[in-house]
Amino acid sequence: MSSVPSEIRSSAPVQLSRRWQWGSKQPISFLMEQAVQNPGVISLAAGLVDHQTLPVAETRSAAAALLADETLAKQALQYGTTQGSERLRRQLLTHLAGLEKCPVDRLGIDAEQLVLTTGSQQLLSLIGEVLLDPGDIVLAAAPTYFAFLGTLNGLGARTIPVATDAGGLQIDALERELKRLEKVGELSRVKLIYVVSYYENPTGISLAADRRAVVVEVARRWSKQQRILVLEDAAYREIRFDGPDLPSLWSFDQAHDTVLLAQTFSKSFSPGFRVGYGVVPRELVAPLCDRKGNEDFGSANFNQHLLATVLERGLYAEHVSMLRQTYRAKRDAMLTAADRYFGGIDGVQWVHPHGGLYVWMTLPETFDTGFDGPFFSHATQVERVMYVPGDVCYAGPAETRPRNQMRLSYGTQTPAGIDEGMRRLASAVRKFVE
Amino acid sequence: MSSVPSEIRSSAPVQLSRRWQWGSKQPISFLMEQAVQNPGVISLAAGLVDHQTLPVAETRSAAAALLADETLAKQALQYGTTQGSERLRRQLLTHLAGLEKCPVDRLGIDAEQLVLTTGSQQLLSLIGEVLLDPGDIVLAAAPTYFAFLGTLNGLGARTIPVATDAGGLQIDALERELKRLEKVGELSRVKLIYVVSYYENPTGISLAADRRAVVVEVARRWSKQQRILVLEDAAYREIRFDGPDLPSLWSFDQAHDTVLLAQTFSKSFSPGFRVGYGVVPRELVAPLCDRKGNEDFGSANFNQHLLATVLERGLYAEHVSMLRQTYRAKRDAMLTAADRYFGGIDGVQWVHPHGGLYVWMTLPETFDTGFDGPFFSHATQVERVMYVPGDVCYAGPAETRPRNQMRLSYGTQTPAGIDEGMRRLASAVRKFVE
Repeated sequence: MSSVPSEIRSSAPVQLSRRWQWGSKQPISFLMEQAVQNPGVISLAAGLVDHQTLPVAETRSAAAALLADETLAKQALQYGTTQGSERLRRQLLTHLAGLEKCPVDRLGIDAEQLVLTTGSQQLLSLIGEVLLDPGDIVLAAAPTYFAFLGTLNGLGARTIPVATDAGGLQIDALERELKRLEKVGELSRVKLIYVVSYYENPTGISLAADRRAVVVEVARRWSKQQRILVLEDAAYREIRFDGPDLPSLWSFDQAHDTVLLAQTFSKSFSPGFRVGYGVVPRELVAPLCDRKGNEDFGSANFNQHLLATVLERGLYAEHVSMLRQTYRAKRDAMLTAADRYFGGIDGVQWVHPHGGLYVWMTLPETFDTGFDGPFFSHATQVERVMYVPGDVCYAGPAETRPRNQMRLSYGTQTPAGIDEGMRRLASAVRKFVE
Repeated sequence: MSSVPSEIRSSAPVQLSRRWQWGSKQPISFLMEQAVQNPGVISLAAGLVDHQTLPVAETRSAAAALLADETLAKQALQYGTTQGSERLRRQLLTHLAGLEKCPVDRLGIDAEQLVLTTGSQQLLSLIGEVLLDPGDIVLAAAPTYFAFLGTLNGLGARTIPVATDAGGLQIDALERELKRLEKVGELSRVKLIYVVSYYENPTGISLAADRRAVVVEVARRWSKQQRILVLEDAAYREIRFDGPDLPSLWSFDQAHDTVLLAQTFSKSFSPGFRVGYGVVPRELVAPLCDRKGNEDFGSANFNQHLLATVLERGLYAEHVSMLRQTYRAKRDAMLTAADRYFGGIDGVQWVHPHGGLYVWMTLPETFDTGFDGPFFSHATQVERVMYVPGDVCYAGPAETRPRNQMRLSYGTQTPAGIDEGMRRLASAVRKFVE
């Protein structure tokens, strides 16, 4: 570029939008930079799926079948609708009925209430776009899924953290917060309660069985001037190892006018397809599709058809059952390693997850696991192990966030890699305990 | 739903965001509803690609090759980066060099300046998101691509129409508008000049050769407090039949700091893949990827790899050459039919396009081709032929827009269907002339 004479370069600065500024700093980017800068590191940070489990044979078989059918192939290669392939949406009804353990005709919805998106992330983003004006309020568990916190920041929304325990979001804390907001005249700004209902990213905790109907009831009861919707993010629902097979919050919303259910095939099949979907109240279908039409006219139709063929040919169920076994073994490897290496360190605790990809670990209160602290540098550069600092998973001002926690993922490493990673991490912790 | 007791239904209204309200009414939705409600209609409205030309054999061959390579297949099925597959971005450099008729190392950019999106529509939307605050100004040809006008409305931006002639955007009109905006103190709100540079949708007109460098120079000269960027939408660039093979506006921006070039494989290969891409000034890569990260973490990696394999195996060039022949024959069919059926009607004129998918027709000034007028109903319901009313392609207040124009597409119909559609349309026109 130095060969370009300066007189033809623009000297005026590019002026970016306010919206860009709200959303600009995502912790995920920093983590990815760190991974690049520390190539020998064992990453317990990445929330990616296991490379070895990716469904090559299943995709090969589905692609061959889809592309052998000239009519279907042309449908798949043409534009789809903004809402997404009806062929896939119909199959998802059956899939959903299987998850909810009821016949399709008892679901209380039809394929018109499903919206297909580029991963469930796009669904979360679109829901934010159509519901939230700058300053509007979302209530969410503390801690919760950090990428969605970033998306909400990008909309200029306010996220208010609600206390959690071993059963997830605490109902009394949720009600207390709603009461407080009413008192200060802000109840009318509350638009959403965000709940990651199964094996939450980052804690691995599922919302307790007896709180599921209650969250829906609370949302409805506090819907005074405007409706308070519940956004149920069930991304990890199908990655279940043991423990109870819980019904969704959505299933307790009999009128299907309060809960939006977000699911995805990124964890249970292939993230490379980027197929997520939402089941949404009927009156929200058009607003979401209008907004999606503005953004991209619809996600890749080809992938939606490919996935429909995968489901149709029974290639999916078998794959998920293999995945569960693989990740269960990895979860066990991480818990065993946690006992082995952290068992003797005072004040270290961790959650035993029944599914998903994460173990949430709490260190003694003197610890600061943050990106800027000496512990993160020591772990990354000396012990060569990486984790996600817990504080990025909390909404609210930095000074109010616990800083002594870590999200550890067993998704991408082998059991041996998990063991070695945990050994290194414990060694880093001991260094800072002593 | 009637079985759900009313006491468990929410009575509080859903309150949608201001942003949703800005973007809610898209003419494309109305057109699609009309197509569904009038099934026997010949649509000269749809801007879709010809179903018969969709690359089934090419995709079959590329998918088999990609999925036979276990390592590459797993890469494709895993998450990609938000910016998009580096493998495809590198190939696009070669592709772009071919279009610009220069060696890759003379392009003056590297693969880091390419961003892959869900169709070029998502790129246009992201550019709007990172640059435009509500009230910011975009200058665009009158008429121009209506879906982008909808996207700009959805951002709360103001689009100011600039007069055009047979050579596209008029430079003196552009300068006049900039001068006027400076005078009223609004120059600092101007962020973008939007130019569909090849076979514009809707007019089929390409920006004249001698105006291409000038637009870049004008943008630079009027960049005073802030940079005024040029967004060059080259969606139809490769669908060229005859006439000069023009260099892009982007090629005149030697420092590559002023023009953003948007291209797509939706028209030239498969819209079902939804792979579009942008070549953008270096300093805009991170803001665009940050925003895209908030929205979807990246488009489908699988499709990007599939397309990379298509390009790598030389399957693309042959397909495009076949497409050109097919669409040229259809363009000829539409122009021949226009002569045959409209030749005898006073005051009817149309543009002869050298590429793309559209013929732009102007009727006598007494006509109102709008959705609400009697002519649209008569054409659709009595003659059973559909077009896109010209007024939806204009920015600015409804009362200032010409209402006697139509966008006619030869994309999806056979030559015989085009002939019959034009016969019906002329019959509708005669009914309103007499």
